[in-house]
Amino acid sequence: MSRWEPNARGRLAAAALELYSERGYEQTAVAEIAKHAGLTERTFFNHYADKREVLFATADEFRDRFVGAVSDALKSVAPIDALAAGLEAIAEMLTEQRDFVRSRQAVIMLNPELQERDLIKLASTSAALAETLRQHGIAEPEASLAAESGIALFKVSFHRWIATKEEHELSLFMREALDALKSVTAGKGARSVT
Amino acid sequence: MSRWEPNARGRLAAAALELYSERGYEQTAVAEIAKHAGLTERTFFNHYADKREVLFATADEFRDRFVGAVSDALKSVAPIDALAAGLEAIAEMLTEQRDFVRSRQAVIMLNPELQERDLIKLASTSAALAETLRQHGIAEPEASLAAESGIALFKVSFHRWIATKEEHELSLFMREALDALKSVTAGKGARSVT
Repeated sequence: MSRWEPNARGRLAAAALELYSERGYEQTAVAEIAKHAGLTERTFFNHYADKREVLFATADEFRDRFVGAVSDALKSVAPIDALAAGLEAIAEMLTEQRDFVRSRQAVIMLNPELQERDLIKLASTSAALAETLRQHGIAEPEASLAAESGIALFKVSFHRWIATKEEHELSLFMREALDALKSVTAGKGARSVT
Repeated sequence: MSRWEPNARGRLAAAALELYSERGYEQTAVAEIAKHAGLTERTFFNHYADKREVLFATADEFRDRFVGAVSDALKSVAPIDALAAGLEAIAEMLTEQRDFVRSRQAVIMLNPELQERDLIKLASTSAALAETLRQHGIAEPEASLAAESGIALFKVSFHRWIATKEEHELSLFMREALDALKSVTAGKGARSVT
């Protein structure tokens, strides 16, 4: 019965996200996702380990594109500029998947277990970034701090992008975040006492 | 049967950590912890919701001390210096509890579920820091970036402190991390290409 289905993986992901958004993640069963996609449960499990996995199927691509772009850039520029290059690559990836990414994030924000999984994904990307920085001769604690800064820049700009109703470019939020980080660490910042 | 037991809370925490370290977290039951502390299971549940809670009993204190110190400092200094003050307060707290903190971290590092809980704790502290910064007139995205930087500084210096065999002060690692962050964001960093 395991005949080939054109783009089964993508159809299952779209069906899952639609049901998670409409009925809630907890209230959706794998059988319903498969049916909604016009496929069998068996086909679902050929592509995803469980219903949580559908939401994190792009986690490896996220890490690899971020780390790959940073690694390439480190050959010629300083760590902070390499992080900027990594963020550009991520902005490109997420902008291509914009509708999926936004619906996905809305589902994740409603479920603490999914938020934990999301944090783990970012922590693993941070560890991979730090490793790449060290391989390019950056010492500790600079390597880990640069990696954590890269993740912080992603988190803050991504959440601003998700929250905005208007058509803003993710890469613009990322550049704004980078400027803000530089400004904060350089000791700038308004004071409330006047 | 609920007679008062002197320092039951502390005795239960010490007993739990001893058993988690010796036998493993998963292999330790609440009944064994209570017995090891010379107390009843009922007393355990008067103090902790479950066996995981013993390890995160100081999470609220961590957040409140960090945020409290940052908030106080923001009255007179820039955000980055306020974060440094917050880190000093945390260094003081963790140094007082040094042996507990180190054993606790060793248990957490062996269990993915506990690591997720630890990440959630830090994310909640980051959100509280950002809120405090906004209340003191810091705009977005500066407030969130400063908050995330504070958490990054904590994470990196804490893990270096935990990993070192020697008697190093946590506050020294924190100052070193702050210098590294300033250096990275100012565009410094060795390049591998010579």
